Formats: sequence, structure tokens, C-alpha cells
Amino acid sequence: MQREHSAAVAGARQAYYERISADHLTPLWEVLHALVPPAPRPSIVPAHWRYAALRDTLLEAGELISAQEAERRVLILENPGVRGQSRITQSLYAGLQLILPGEVAPAHRHAQSALRLVLEGEGAYTAVDGERTTMRRGDFIITPSMTWHDHGNPGDEPVVWLDGLDIPLVQFLDAGFAEKAPVQMQSEARPEGDALLRYGHNMVPIDFYQSASGPTPVFVYPYRQTKHALLGLEGTPADPWHGHAFRYVNPATGASPMPTIGAFARRLKAGTETRPYRSTDSTVFVCLEGEGRATVGERTFDLAPNDVLVVPSWTVHQFRGSADMILFSFSDRPVQQGLGLWREDKLS
Amino acid sequence: MQREHSAAVAGARQAYYERISADHLTPLWEVLHALVPPAPRPSIVPAHWRYAALRDTLLEAGELISAQEAERRVLILENPGVRGQSRITQSLYAGLQLILPGEVAPAHRHAQSALRLVLEGEGAYTAVDGERTTMRRGDFIITPSMTWHDHGNPGDEPVVWLDGLDIPLVQFLDAGFAEKAPVQMQSEARPEGDALLRYGHNMVPIDFYQSASGPTPVFVYPYRQTKHALLGLEGTPADPWHGHAFRYVNPATGASPMPTIGAFARRLKAGTETRPYRSTDSTVFVCLEGEGRATVGERTFDLAPNDVLVVPSWTVHQFRGSADMILFSFSDRPVQQGLGLWREDKLS
Amino acid sequence: MQREHSAAVAGARQAYYERISADHLTPLWEVLHALVPPAPRPSIVPAHWRYAALRDTLLEAGELISAQEAERRVLILENPGVRGQSRITQSLYAGLQLILPGEVAPAHRHAQSALRLVLEGEGAYTAVDGERTTMRRGDFIITPSMTWHDHGNPGDEPVVWLDGLDIPLVQFLDAGFAEKAPVQMQSEARPEGDALLRYGHNMVPIDFYQSASGPTPVFVYPYRQTKHALLGLEGTPADPWHGHAFRYVNPATGASPMPTIGAFARRLKAGTETRPYRSTDSTVFVCLEGEGRATVGERTFDLAPNDVLVVPSWTVHQFRGSADMILFSFSDRPVQQGLGLWREDKLS
Amino acid sequence: MQREHSAAVAGARQAYYERISADHLTPLWEVLHALVPPAPRPSIVPAHWRYAALRDTLLEAGELISAQEAERRVLILENPGVRGQSRITQSLYAGLQLILPGEVAPAHRHAQSALRLVLEGEGAYTAVDGERTTMRRGDFIITPSMTWHDHGNPGDEPVVWLDGLDIPLVQFLDAGFAEKAPVQMQSEARPEGDALLRYGHNMVPIDFYQSASGPTPVFVYPYRQTKHALLGLEGTPADPWHGHAFRYVNPATGASPMPTIGAFARRLKAGTETRPYRSTDSTVFVCLEGEGRATVGERTFDLAPNDVLVVPSWTVHQFRGSADMILFSFSDRPVQQGLGLWREDKLS
Repeated sequence: MQREHSAAVAGARQAYYERISADHLTPLWEVLHALVPPAPRPSIVPAHWRYAALRDTLLEAGELISAQEAERRVLILENPGVRGQSRITQSLYAGLQLILPGEVAPAHRHAQSALRLVLEGEGAYTAVDGERTTMRRGDFIITPSMTWHDHGNPGDEPVVWLDGLDIPLVQFLDAGFAEKAPVQMQSEARPEGDALLRYGHNMVPIDFYQSASGPTPVFVYPYRQTKHALLGLEGTPADPWHGHAFRYVNPATGASPMPTIGAFARRLKAGTETRPYRSTDSTVFVCLEGEGRATVGERTFDLAPNDVLVVPSWTVHQFRGSADMILFSFSDRPVQQGLGLWREDKLS
Repeated sequence: MQREHSAAVAGARQAYYERISADHLTPLWEVLHALVPPAPRPSIVPAHWRYAALRDTLLEAGELISAQEAERRVLILENPGVRGQSRITQSLYAGLQLILPGEVAPAHRHAQSALRLVLEGEGAYTAVDGERTTMRRGDFIITPSMTWHDHGNPGDEPVVWLDGLDIPLVQFLDAGFAEKAPVQMQSEARPEGDALLRYGHNMVPIDFYQSASGPTPVFVYPYRQTKHALLGLEGTPADPWHGHAFRYVNPATGASPMPTIGAFARRLKAGTETRPYRSTDSTVFVCLEGEGRATVGERTFDLAPNDVLVVPSWTVHQFRGSADMILFSFSDRPVQQGLGLWREDKLS
Repeated sequence: MQREHSAAVAGARQAYYERISADHLTPLWEVLHALVPPAPRPSIVPAHWRYAALRDTLLEAGELISAQEAERRVLILENPGVRGQSRITQSLYAGLQLILPGEVAPAHRHAQSALRLVLEGEGAYTAVDGERTTMRRGDFIITPSMTWHDHGNPGDEPVVWLDGLDIPLVQFLDAGFAEKAPVQMQSEARPEGDALLRYGHNMVPIDFYQSASGPTPVFVYPYRQTKHALLGLEGTPADPWHGHAFRYVNPATGASPMPTIGAFARRLKAGTETRPYRSTDSTVFVCLEGEGRATVGERTFDLAPNDVLVVPSWTVHQFRGSADMILFSFSDRPVQQGLGLWREDKLS
Repeated sequence: MQREHSAAVAGARQAYYERISADHLTPLWEVLHALVPPAPRPSIVPAHWRYAALRDTLLEAGELISAQEAERRVLILENPGVRGQSRITQSLYAGLQLILPGEVAPAHRHAQSALRLVLEGEGAYTAVDGERTTMRRGDFIITPSMTWHDHGNPGDEPVVWLDGLDIPLVQFLDAGFAEKAPVQMQSEARPEGDALLRYGHNMVPIDFYQSASGPTPVFVYPYRQTKHALLGLEGTPADPWHGHAFRYVNPATGASPMPTIGAFARRLKAGTETRPYRSTDSTVFVCLEGEGRATVGERTFDLAPNDVLVVPSWTVHQFRGSADMILFSFSDRPVQQGLGLWREDKLS
């Protein structure tokens, strides 16, 4: 009887669901626990790209298409959990960009914010709103929302960097705008190094005041400086979960360099292991120096220079350096913090 | 020759794409313009739900499932452009909730922020962190992130409200947490009306200081007050694009009541038409009073009380009141503004 | 010997001090502990003005000078500890202003911020930047820095209010500017009540965004509302040090109504006594209702309606109501808090 | 008749003033225009101290009192317009401090914020909250409110610096607290250079978040860096009113290093003259390099290295370098800006 009754109820409900579907209605109670889960259930998965294995593949792209035809010659790193969506985490995009000697990636601008982490090669440059910066390995360079930017390689070797953008986030918010510049290369409005001179020494121009949410006026964070700071802390205690670790800031506000992407650098001593940690911002790590092992949930990954690793939201992870490691990372942390959604868990 | 060459190139590229796909790589240049469009291309579409047509459907749900079994007896308004995703805009969820006399929707809390707009019936209440508020038509009530909340209807008629939540946004960020309370109904920690007494008269408790990003300590914005303010401006010039229009604020910060959802109220005089307008925040409108016509892109919709209308991002729209209209609306505007992504266009 | 030596040293030093004085130099070590004391040593003292005793004196001023000749007919309340300096605390000025039927206090503006607390009489108005507000007893009205303002009394009885300004602070910073308007009375740009309609219901105009440091767009806090909130909290626990107590806020930011002056209202039940308290902001209290006794340091003062009391910085004080009391107060607290200098001490 | 009448009125008023004085009342209308002037009327005056002339005087103090007996061996620079008040501007104090080889200025802390600008000698140090910094000429060092600090000179030559404090401001607000440390010298909690490593490269420690009003975590701004930035801008256009000019910032917020004192550095090319300028913040200038002429109101002053110059509020001034000049300056600008009182005037 009970079972018959239940079957009748289920049938009546199903008929109701089908009927109301025409009015673009659907019952919450059938999906509530999937929509509002007790803890994050990311659809992205831990993933690892070995630079040594990909380098030839990337150079091969240099023969298949020119930078100019491609506009940007980039291989997107697609998270295996969400193939076909051009994203490395839920909210962020990443790709490896190659620019060959003599090539130019023409000037454009877009609402999407972008970062570059230089992986290999010397002699290329990025120009942002009229100022060029020469790209050197490990440099962290940004092109904030709606800034004109172009890249070029007047040098004599291929240059490779990692691009990180908030493309999925802007797409999600349906707030994207883009345009091409009338010229391929911006003319130089300021000499190279100008922004770092003006904003790089705990001073800003006397009349400069910035709104709290604007992007940083500094658009390059030279690896030389980052490494100097990381090595300089050698003699001081390391954080058990992060090692010696920094977050990059906008010197005019102390906020993240761009409002949508936070970036971090850390150094782990050979033979040390960080304690287990998790946070709600799915994070992309890049191994800049050294080697070691990452444990992400149930999986382990051996990291070598220029390798890229993704740790999904709320997934416990830790690092063990077999040689002194320097890791760069980025995530949507400032978005989550601004919305009051960010959480972390420091395990013992 | 050229064609043969092109075909060869295309073939080589295609072979390359297939090969690299195994490494979770995909070429940017094939998707660049879809990923970074010149202007927003929302996948949601304009949509309209007529309350008069849905009312019986909703009441029917009252016979199919109890509030307690359902946890929340809600019919989700699914945007026709993205069926199956439980969202009314890209980033927001909306649904019609019914609670019958004697029913209780048990206490729970979650990272998702929620708003309620009361549409019909008297006698129900929402309790938020130990304080109840009696729900009256037009009242705008919020349950900020991680606040305990439950609903009940000790009255003698069905009560219906619109729920608006940031479920898709929290899902997108993989930052959702939820839990059920050990008891169905919270005990009363403060008398009804306490929050409005403490924060509702341009004063706050003497020792109260709030961080800029926190939720409002006020959780109800009575319609009585909103209407009083809207009607009071009758004799002053109306904004050409918005009519007499307000945004709801957290009186302790001036920011939006919740960090992820902005809410607005406006009044349009009979016979007037707003000028064409668009903004990047897809917006849900609810007609609280009067009637009129909305033009959204190429489509028109006739609005009556309690009707729900969705205007997608960057879609030109305008309203014409055949009787004096009061419209409530909500969107993810504070998210976009905090990230520097929001744009609007006031057309003539 | 030692004494002779000391005398010689003292003499040499004194000679040196006299010699270097010509170069505008003076030795720090002779004044260090006075300049940098272990705790505040205010030069102002506790003081009390009885309204009942002053009322006739004030009305007498009405016979000696017209409002127009005086520009503002005000008796300054000078702190007995710093006579001749036109200040009631170190940083604030206060005075009793009288305006007779038919009089006008002509329009001017200045960098100094002003508050008015209406003490007696009906029928006068204050106009601020084109909007008038009718002054009723207990109303707290502000004229922020550089806003045009004038007063008038079209009624038929004398009207008295307390003025509170940051004159000493602006003088101290040498940052004062002032100018008279070309006309005596501003023309009406907005109907009375407009600001409260627009900013008084936890809503603001849809396009209104304000910088964190700006003054409030609301310029009147009606006593009717303040009293409603204070009495409404009757059934809830009172703060042991403050009673039921509020601070007035700018609803667009949650900050103090003006950046230089904080204002507060509190209610003490008959028969209760607040616990001893002190803070670094010297405070001016006004008794709006009831009566009671204030203990300030070693002294006691019996308060009646409209009495004014000054509590110097870091001086322990407490109140005991013989009848239910409502107290208004103001101080430079937001200045001290903004500079990281404010301290309080809640004693038991 | 009229004259007799006037005399009678004046007499009656005078009698009234004398009578009410006993009640600590005084008429506003007799002092209104002095209290609320049309523009700043500073009581301080332009002043100039020649370091070459004072150096011997300062060294002589070294023979009259030890650093330990003096607690701080400082000659206060007293503004000639307000002698006897230990202030160089209305709100700020300045003095020349001498510390001889082997001496220690014992550890203490106070609510007052202090800056040091090193003028002469090598080998001394300042320790702030457990970290030492070696003092080199031109270094700008701060000891924020309530930080423990001590100085010492383990070197072999006298060291002289300029102290700048907000003593008059804290005194004015009656908000000063001070205490001596139980030991003369703090023990070293962090190695020298730690703060600059952690906060000096547009990065901060990963978990570091700071409230907007806190002091900078960086407490030394090495002159080496300042000069590098100033000289680096050589090829770019100079500001007509300021030359190449910076303001020092807290890298964690972009605000001034301390909430009460702003600091600036500028370079003027030989042969150039800045355009006339004035602002409401009375400013103390120190000539670090080069020489030139300052015109301040009606007066002119010839500046040489280590000379100190005061420009009162709202006084027009300009500089002409006869040799390339580097000027350091400080004022209460952040106080005035936070309160909405600061104004400047760029004249042509």
C-alpha cells in the first residue's frame, strides 16, 4: 500500500514537473542538495602539465601558424574535468604563449585582466598603455582590464610565457568587451622602467591618489626582486603551510594587482614539507625553480621547472621539496574575499 | 594551388589539434573571438513569467509536497536560454516559494546569500539569526551568507514570495557550504523589529563598527517605507532612464545589502516612458504595482502585478507605464562594480 | 662639592639655553615630560551650564543686538579652563543661539562643520544647500563643511538651539575659509523633507555613490525618530556604560555625519547608574529629557533639561538618572579614530 | 544723537559682556570674524634654520648633557611666531637630535608618531618594535604611534638627525600616552632589513592584511632608493609646481606612512624655478642636496644642505635651484585630507 501510494505520488509529481516545464519552471526540491552542497564539489580536477613534455608541442605550433595570424599563439591548458570550456579552473583561463624572433602579437584591449609569467627565452617585450617592459624569466607582468597591450620579440630566440586570464569569470558575468588597436604596435609614451621608478620604492607620484578598486599602476614585478626577497628570508622561520610566502600587491592600495586575480610567490626549502592546507580558491601553481612533489587530494605529482599544477577548491594539498623550490601561483582569491566567500583550512 | 595549400594547412592543424588534445591542450586561435567577444553575448534570453498564470500551478505544488519534505517548496524560474541550470540570469537564481498555513520551512544556513520579495498573503515570517520579521507584501527581506534562517506560516492563508539567490555565482566559484540546524525553528534571541530599531533611523548602536564588505545588520526593508519614499518624490523630477529610483543600502556602510546582490526600487508614472538603457548586469524585475509594457531588445512584454521579467546583460530596454508602476529589481551589480567590470549606457 | 658641581652645570646649561634662544632653539629635555605625558592632561575642565539659569541672559541678548547685525546671535560657552579661547573642549566650540520671530541669520558658508541641537521654541528653520528643514526640539541638524546655510524664524516665539562647531580644530590646522552669500536667504532648490526621503529609509538614489570621507547627504536627524528608537529598545538589555545608546551615521557610508564631529544619543532609565567610563575624546553632553546626576572626576553635577555638561579627555564619569533621561552628546571621536589615537576604558 | 545712542548701546553691551563672563559666556559676534576667517591666518611664520650655523651649537649640547640623562638630546626648532610652544608648525614639532659614539637613547613608546631624517654621521641605529635599522644620511625612518623605539650609536662619529613629531596635534586632541621600557635597549626580534624584505618589493607576506588606517609595516625608506627613483626620472617632464616629486606611502595601503604625517621628496634641476604654489598644510622642508633659493610670501631664503625651512599654511612659495636640489618635506596633509579640509592652489 505504502509503496503503491509512493509510486502514485512520484507519478503525480513527475507529471507535474513535465507540465510546468513548459512555463520554464522546475522544482527546487529535486535539486536543492546539488545546488546548495554542504561543501564545495568542484567539477574541475587536479591536473599537471609537464613543461618538458610540452615544449616541443608548443614550438611545433610556431610552424603551423604565425603570431599575427593567430593574434595570440597560445595553447590553452584545459582542465580535464571541464574539457571544451577553455578554462584551467572554474573561473580562470591559462595558456602557454609562444612568440618567435621577429614576431609581433598585435595591440588590443579587453575587459578581461591578464597576467604573464615568463618561462623561457629572452628578448621579448610586453607593452602596456604606452610603456614597454622587457620580459625575463620569472617576471610577473600584468595587463589590467581595458589596458592596450601588445607583445613583440625583437630578439633571436623563441620566448614562452604562461598567460593567466579571468576569461571564464568575465564570460560568466556577461561583461566582456574587446577591441583591436588601429596599429599593431603602440608607440612609446614613457621610457621602459618608468612605472617601477614611479611606484616601485614605497613612494608614488606626489599627486597620485587611486580608488581602492583600481588596478596597480605597476605592471611588472621583476623576478629578480621577488627572488631577492624570498632568499633574503632564508634565516627566518618559514610558515608551516606556505613556506616563505608573499602575495603581490598594488603599491598604491595594498590590494591585489588586479581585482579579479591574486598572485603569490613562495619558497620551500629542500627536504621540508608544508602542512596540509586547503582553501576555496582553486589555484594554479607554476614551478619556477627546483623540484619536488605535490600531493593533491589522493594524487601526487612530481614537479620540475615550468610545470603547471592545478589544485581545485577545498582540496587538501601539500608540497615537499627535493631541491629548494620557488612556486608562483594565482587564483580568484580577491574575488572571493571581496564577496565574503573565501575560506581556508590549515590542517596539522 | 592556394586552395590546395590552404587545405593542407588546415589538415595539418586539425591533426595537430587532435594530437595535443590528449595532453589537455587546445589552440586559442580557434576560439579567441568567442572567448573574448567585442561586447557581451549573453546565453540567457529575455523572459517573462505572468503571476496570474502561475498562481494555480504554484498552489498545486502545495498539494504535491509539504514544505517540510521539500525543505523549501519552490518553483525555480529557469531562464529559457539555459534550461536545466537552475538559473534566471547567468549568476543568479530565482524561484517562487509557497508556504501554507501551519507549515514550517526548517532552519538552515549556507554561503549563498538570499533575498525574499513578498508577493502574496499575510501571516508568514522569516527568522534570521534569532530575530523574526513578519512578511508583508512588497517587503524586501534578506538572509545574508551563513546566517541561520527559517520560515513559518502561523497565519491562515497561503503566502508566496520570490526568492533570489546567488547560487550560480557561488557554484561558479566553488565556494559553497551549507548545513541544517539541529532544530527546525530558531529560538527568539531578539524581539521582532529590533534590527530596524537599531539600524533603521540613520543611527547605529554606539559601539557598532562594521567592515566594508560585511552584510547589512538590517534584514528587512519594509515596503511601507519604500513606498512612502517613492510616493514622496512625486513632485520632483524623475530620472529619464530610471524614473524615481532607489538602491537599497546597508546603513552601516552604504554598500549593497549583501555583497553579491544589489537591489533597487523604482516608480514610473502612468503615461511616461523611460529612455532606452542597458547595463552589463542582467537584471530581474518584479512588478509590484500598476501595469505597463517593457521593451527588451526586439521583444515586448506586458507587465501586471507580481510578474517577473528578466533583462539580459547589455540588452537595451525601456518601460512604459499604463498605470503608475512600482518595480523592484535585483542583479549582480555590486559584484561587477567591485571588480571594475560594470558598464551602463544611457541612450537618448 | 656635588652641589657646587650641579650648580655649575645648571648655570652652564641656563646660559646655553639663553644663547640658543636667539636662534629659535630650545632644549627638549627640559620639557619632554610635559610634551609627551604618560596620559592625557587636559587643560579644559569639567563644566556645567544650567539652561534654567541662562535662559533670561540669552533672551536679554535679543534686546542688545539683532540677529542680522550679529550675523549669528550666539553666546559662546567657554570652558573655564581655557577662557578667552572660544572653545568648550580643546577641539570644539559650542554656543547657544537665539533667533527671534521675524529674524534672519544670513546665508554664509565656511570650512568649519556645524551641528545644531534644537532646545526651545518652534517655527524656525535651517536651510542647507537649498533645502529647508523646520527645527523642532531635539532635532539634530548639520551644516557640513562649505555648505551654504542660513536660519530664519517666521514663527511667533523665540527659538534657541545649541551650536557645535569644529572651529578650534580648523583654526589649529590653519585650514579655514569662509564667505558670505550674495543674498541673505537661499532660494529653495528642493522641497522640505527631500533629503530624508532620498536617504532616510536605508535606500539612496539609484546613481548615488559617495566617497568614504564625504559628509552625509542627510542634514537632519529628527528627534521624533531618535526618541522612537530609544524608547523602542526599552525591553532589551541596556549597555552597562552607555545605557541604550546610538551614534548617528551618514547612511551613505556608515561613518559619522561629518568627518570632524561624532554625535550620540542615549537613554538612561530612572534609578539606574552607568558604570564608570572614560575615553580620550572630550565630550559635550546635553540633557534633552529627564534629570539626574553626573559624576565627572571628583565633581558632581545635577542635570536638568537643556543643561550642557563637558567631560574632559580621559576623565572618569558616570550618570545616574532620577527620572528617565535622554542625553545627546558630541565630540571629536571620528578625528581621533581616523588617526588611530582614540582610546576608551570601561571600568567596573 | 546717533553717537550718543551708539555709545549707550556699546556701554550696555560691555556691561552685559562683563556680567555674563561670570557664567563662562562670551558673545560670538565680537569674535566671529577672527574665529571664522575668510582664509587661513596662520600664527606661525616662515622660518629658516641654517645647518652650518647650528652644527657647533648642537655639538655643544653633547658636552652639557648625556643622551641618557636627556632621554633624547634634542634642540627643538621653535617657530618664531609661536615661541615657547615647542612647535615648528601649528600641528607639528621638529628638533635636531644628536647622539654621540657609545651613547644610547633609551627605549620608550608614545601615542605620538615620529619621523627621523638622517642629516649627518654614520653608525647609529634606530630600533623599532624589535628590528634595528642602520641610519644613513637621507634615510627617512619612522616610529609609528605606540611602537617601542630606541636609538644607539655604536659607531665612532657623532650622528645627527631631524626629528619630526605630531606632538602639538596629540596635545591638542588630549590623546597622548607614553611609557618607558623596562630595558634601555630592545632585544632583536628580527634581523636588520627584515621589514624591507617583507614589504619593500610590491609584495607583502601572504597572510598579511592591514586596516586602512594602520601605520606602515615598513619603517625605513632608504635614501639610496629615493635618490635612485628621483634621478631615474631625469629624462621625463618635471611637474611645474613640484619638480620630480614623490610622496612616501605605506605599501600595504597606499596611504601615508603614518596617519598624522605625510612625507615627500622632490628634485629640482639646477636653473629651474617651480611655479608659485600654496596649500593649507604648513610644511617643513629639508634641503638634502644642492642649493637654491626659496621665496615664501614676501621673504626669500638661501638654502644649503641640511637647512630647514618652514612654509606656513596658504603662503605662496616657490623654489629656484642654483644647483640640482633634493628636498625632503613633511606636513599634516593626511590629517587635513582625511577630514576634507585640505586645499591647494597651483598658480601660474
